[in-house]
Amino acid sequence: MMIVVMQPNASMQEKSGIISWAEDLGFKIHLSTGSERTIIGVIGDDRVINREQLERMSGVERVVPVLKPFKIASREFKPNDTQFSIGNHVIGGKDLIIMAGPCSVESRSQILETAHACKEAGAHILRGGAFKPRSSPYSFQGMGEEGLKYLAEAREQTGMPIITEVMEPSLVPLVAEYADILQIGARNMQNYALLHAVGESQHPVLLKRGMSSLIEEWLMSAEYILSHGNTRVMMCERGIRTFERYTRNTFDINAIPVLKQLTHLPVIADPSHGTGKWEYVESVTKASVAAGADGVILEVHPRPEEAMSDGRQSLKPERFAQLVRDMKAIAQAVGRDVPVAERVPA
Amino acid sequence: MMIVVMQPNASMQEKSGIISWAEDLGFKIHLSTGSERTIIGVIGDDRVINREQLERMSGVERVVPVLKPFKIASREFKPNDTQFSIGNHVIGGKDLIIMAGPCSVESRSQILETAHACKEAGAHILRGGAFKPRSSPYSFQGMGEEGLKYLAEAREQTGMPIITEVMEPSLVPLVAEYADILQIGARNMQNYALLHAVGESQHPVLLKRGMSSLIEEWLMSAEYILSHGNTRVMMCERGIRTFERYTRNTFDINAIPVLKQLTHLPVIADPSHGTGKWEYVESVTKASVAAGADGVILEVHPRPEEAMSDGRQSLKPERFAQLVRDMKAIAQAVGRDVPVAERVPA
Amino acid sequence: MMIVVMQPNASMQEKSGIISWAEDLGFKIHLSTGSERTIIGVIGDDRVINREQLERMSGVERVVPVLKPFKIASREFKPNDTQFSIGNHVIGGKDLIIMAGPCSVESRSQILETAHACKEAGAHILRGGAFKPRSSPYSFQGMGEEGLKYLAEAREQTGMPIITEVMEPSLVPLVAEYADILQIGARNMQNYALLHAVGESQHPVLLKRGMSSLIEEWLMSAEYILSHGNTRVMMCERGIRTFERYTRNTFDINAIPVLKQLTHLPVIADPSHGTGKWEYVESVTKASVAAGADGVILEVHPRPEEAMSDGRQSLKPERFAQLVRDMKAIAQAVGRDVPVAERVPA
Amino acid sequence: MMIVVMQPNASMQEKSGIISWAEDLGFKIHLSTGSERTIIGVIGDDRVINREQLERMSGVERVVPVLKPFKIASREFKPNDTQFSIGNHVIGGKDLIIMAGPCSVESRSQILETAHACKEAGAHILRGGAFKPRSSPYSFQGMGEEGLKYLAEAREQTGMPIITEVMEPSLVPLVAEYADILQIGARNMQNYALLHAVGESQHPVLLKRGMSSLIEEWLMSAEYILSHGNTRVMMCERGIRTFERYTRNTFDINAIPVLKQLTHLPVIADPSHGTGKWEYVESVTKASVAAGADGVILEVHPRPEEAMSDGRQSLKPERFAQLVRDMKAIAQAVGRDVPVAERVPA
Repeated sequence: MMIVVMQPNASMQEKSGIISWAEDLGFKIHLSTGSERTIIGVIGDDRVINREQLERMSGVERVVPVLKPFKIASREFKPNDTQFSIGNHVIGGKDLIIMAGPCSVESRSQILETAHACKEAGAHILRGGAFKPRSSPYSFQGMGEEGLKYLAEAREQTGMPIITEVMEPSLVPLVAEYADILQIGARNMQNYALLHAVGESQHPVLLKRGMSSLIEEWLMSAEYILSHGNTRVMMCERGIRTFERYTRNTFDINAIPVLKQLTHLPVIADPSHGTGKWEYVESVTKASVAAGADGVILEVHPRPEEAMSDGRQSLKPERFAQLVRDMKAIAQAVGRDVPVAERVPA
Repeated sequence: MMIVVMQPNASMQEKSGIISWAEDLGFKIHLSTGSERTIIGVIGDDRVINREQLERMSGVERVVPVLKPFKIASREFKPNDTQFSIGNHVIGGKDLIIMAGPCSVESRSQILETAHACKEAGAHILRGGAFKPRSSPYSFQGMGEEGLKYLAEAREQTGMPIITEVMEPSLVPLVAEYADILQIGARNMQNYALLHAVGESQHPVLLKRGMSSLIEEWLMSAEYILSHGNTRVMMCERGIRTFERYTRNTFDINAIPVLKQLTHLPVIADPSHGTGKWEYVESVTKASVAAGADGVILEVHPRPEEAMSDGRQSLKPERFAQLVRDMKAIAQAVGRDVPVAERVPA
Repeated sequence: MMIVVMQPNASMQEKSGIISWAEDLGFKIHLSTGSERTIIGVIGDDRVINREQLERMSGVERVVPVLKPFKIASREFKPNDTQFSIGNHVIGGKDLIIMAGPCSVESRSQILETAHACKEAGAHILRGGAFKPRSSPYSFQGMGEEGLKYLAEAREQTGMPIITEVMEPSLVPLVAEYADILQIGARNMQNYALLHAVGESQHPVLLKRGMSSLIEEWLMSAEYILSHGNTRVMMCERGIRTFERYTRNTFDINAIPVLKQLTHLPVIADPSHGTGKWEYVESVTKASVAAGADGVILEVHPRPEEAMSDGRQSLKPERFAQLVRDMKAIAQAVGRDVPVAERVPA
Repeated sequence: MMIVVMQPNASMQEKSGIISWAEDLGFKIHLSTGSERTIIGVIGDDRVINREQLERMSGVERVVPVLKPFKIASREFKPNDTQFSIGNHVIGGKDLIIMAGPCSVESRSQILETAHACKEAGAHILRGGAFKPRSSPYSFQGMGEEGLKYLAEAREQTGMPIITEVMEPSLVPLVAEYADILQIGARNMQNYALLHAVGESQHPVLLKRGMSSLIEEWLMSAEYILSHGNTRVMMCERGIRTFERYTRNTFDINAIPVLKQLTHLPVIADPSHGTGKWEYVESVTKASVAAGADGVILEVHPRPEEAMSDGRQSLKPERFAQLVRDMKAIAQAVGRDVPVAERVPA
């Protein structure tokens, strides 16, 4: 595959020119129209593509051959780190971004209390599930749209952007109406219709790694989103399934440097799911920062023993506050920083 | 949880009686209205449910306490094997059912040729993918509805019912219009919206095991379908992901007796995906029959080297025909049989 | 690497000639002196070895280039199945060989009772551990030499050859004095000093697969034994460690056809460890026979609930007797047979 | 099991008193005679042991009931961190200890050059294999005793204590003559004869985690060593085998806090094997320090491309020197430090 990056001001005619040329030669076309520029993937036997001829065609900025199965996600395609703003913070740059909140939105008071506690402790973004993927049809499935409304209220009160999971294509418009970041859960990493829908939405996406996904497959799932022109994708390591039983999952710390080498996308660590027990969350959070993660997402609950889901892996606000201080020390030791979460007038 | 099985002729009023009684005591209700009878799940602390009182209530046939997390799927709930007809064959009984066909429908002539060859060799049901889940957005994604039409034409010519994959909730009505069995792929085993949709559809479902799913999680996914009143669910072992590299997956032969112990649902083996290489398919197919599988699903392609997907694991029709004979010998050695696939006038 | 197979009657001088020639050219030599013939491995850059010249040298029978990392174990090196006798039975041929007995020798009466029951039921070889590898230093570690003596007595009474585990190089002579087959346990698959010692012993060896060993690594461990000139090695699949929890291990049924393709060595299945629960042993045993195993090794105990180890996965003699009959039916369905275990005068 | 800790000055008679008492009651005894004190394990049904009576017996310091399968290794048995000196450094305390050197000793000049470079960069202990466990019998198996002599020479020149692997019981005396720390490799984690031998040796031991060992099994292997009275054991996480393929192993960062909770033994990280590629070693080393490891062991080679083993995962001395500086910054951020490796007069 060759990736043809068009100039920002390339005309419709210039784009059509490339497409016709490639199709006439028997290639297939993958078109990705982003807000700034158009990318044309020319798919077929690379050896017979005349790269020089392509580069000389009108409107073309550059032509990139990509050997890896993921293309737009690869460092070959985009050598510099992808950075983008969420609220007042930039993800993928020098700052370490902290997302925190309960596993599930359980009530208005619970999410508001937790949001304020997280904000106070230094979190930048509020997490909370309104639609919950649960192994059992008989378990609590989340509060649905009501939960989204409470999240929005928490954002209003604290100024924190919100991240929440979307589980099916038909709900993307609803969830996107409330959320600042759409989360794709581990179970849905290869739900292609959903990847398509969040790709189309143009909302920032946090893509969790599937429970037993190869890093390559995970990047291929990011490619599905990117190929719809949505470039704001974060990769979230949340532990893989192994034989070990003391922990719920095995947090794959190796994945952080591997991703940093293979892709330009920001990398977020989820030590709550990565360990499954709050006692281990602090160590693995610090480890993730030291390894080079661009952010973390943590489960925090004021009364974990009463949580409707994942209480076992949730930190209390006091411990979370201490952990933010610890993260700051480590971030500085590796040349980064944890930005201050600015106060919002009550 | 207690499962309250209502008498077949229980009235609406009797059902409401149970529900009100349970809700008044603070229990949650899970209602499943099947074609024949209604099942009411009473969810809450089992210890405070007065089982005897429940059993004496009007319209109640029996009350079953279920300790396992999967309820309707469990042998505790239904001790006898589930059996149902697909076309002229019964799945889950003495007969071993053979499903065969290409990974993807690639053209009208390819599917018709393969269907006739499979029928000739002894297959009972035709498989073929029209919507394909592919790791790469740049790979062939299936022929879509056109493929479904060719499958229907193959059914008309050969008399074989067809099984094909459905990947998203919104496509369930379309696929169900053509298919006799809806297949849920490994990547979608925990796509709950999709499980909900196929549950509602009341079509027979073949539920593939997720790549790294615990048997318990897999049965919980079956429970999602069953809890919508759709009782015709088959469990399909297709190999799990391990560290071994000579094979694409590790076929979990243990899962066959484990499922037979835990559930009443029919068990189907998929040695094509379970090994990933055609040279190993024959041995593992024979093993599955010996272990007690109720059926197998196999990839067959007239020219595997030209297949658009999974050619590496597809058998040629001649080898498949020999394998059907081998399966028959083993089926008979374990007290079962491979029924003759009746001829259909051309 | 090139493998130089010398003629059976090659003289010492001819062998030295090859060695000097190769060493002068800078190659390293791996010498394997078997009872019948000598094999000289010429290790180095294959491309610069003049194969034709080598083949013309005095005393050389043939020269085999081997691309796989395992050499003597590979089908490239020896296309025909390895067969050898243990007692009155031939392993690796048409007959399916059944090894059975308790996990541990627990007392004289226990092993004698079990041996007679196994013989009666149709077993050909008696298993029983005298030295036991146990995770805990506080668990029963086996009866040691006393256990070996009881095994020998059981052999005398029943006529069955015995297989028992050896755990350390220094004990190989002692165990070999009593045992007909030396078993290398899963934990010791890469205990190279032990592989060396059993290689030297020239006793038949049953090599269990390590808990998480690649098939390739397992064949490399066989190569360690073979490279000491001991050609009587059996590969024993006993399940691998995966994430699944209903079973103790995941029996890798795929390994049977994979091994049959890669190596000429006999393949033995161990469904007792491969499942870890007796309820599943029967299905997986039948599956192994259907898949092409040359033999099985099963744990049988007259009172599993009293067993000092592995009672959970031990069959009672009655069930074992029925299983032998089932195996016979399946063996015949795949063109093999279970030979009658001849009576021995009491 | 009850663990009876005897007073340091307990007499032989007092010890025998306990033992006779317990044996008369039908308990089994596990005796561990350390340099300072004797520990008597009383094995049997805990419920019938009269703990108070035991505690009042002459010579007894305290009685500890241990619920976990590992006893002496558990925090229940010994709440405070185990600390001990190696050369001038203390392991298990505030200081982070750095072990570095080549995978294999390849020549006198190679090990001397590397040792000086490691010392210069800040390493405290020199690693280097003289006996190498290799998957293939045809690979370089190490220099043997000659390698040990070169290591000793390197120690003399640099002042660094040396750690090297011992692979079989019969070689423990030889290796212990040269080495300051005995390393048990991953493949030998359950080689019980070897654990016994290093337990007897009373030399400090670094116990690598088996490739697919549960943390509990790993602690049980430590228990084998401890139960011989050797208390100087370090637990070394070196990655586990999973399905992921971009890295050689998956470094289990979770194991660090898990071990810190379960055991008092020092924890060492091996990011070289844990990742298998030098590009990822730096991130994972920093992560390990942040997670709470007491030390690291790293492969360093002046010319990795020429290394006879593991070149792919070896750092060059310059990068290693930078990494030592990075580790110091992170160690300080988590309240620890990297001590200066004192100069030795040339």
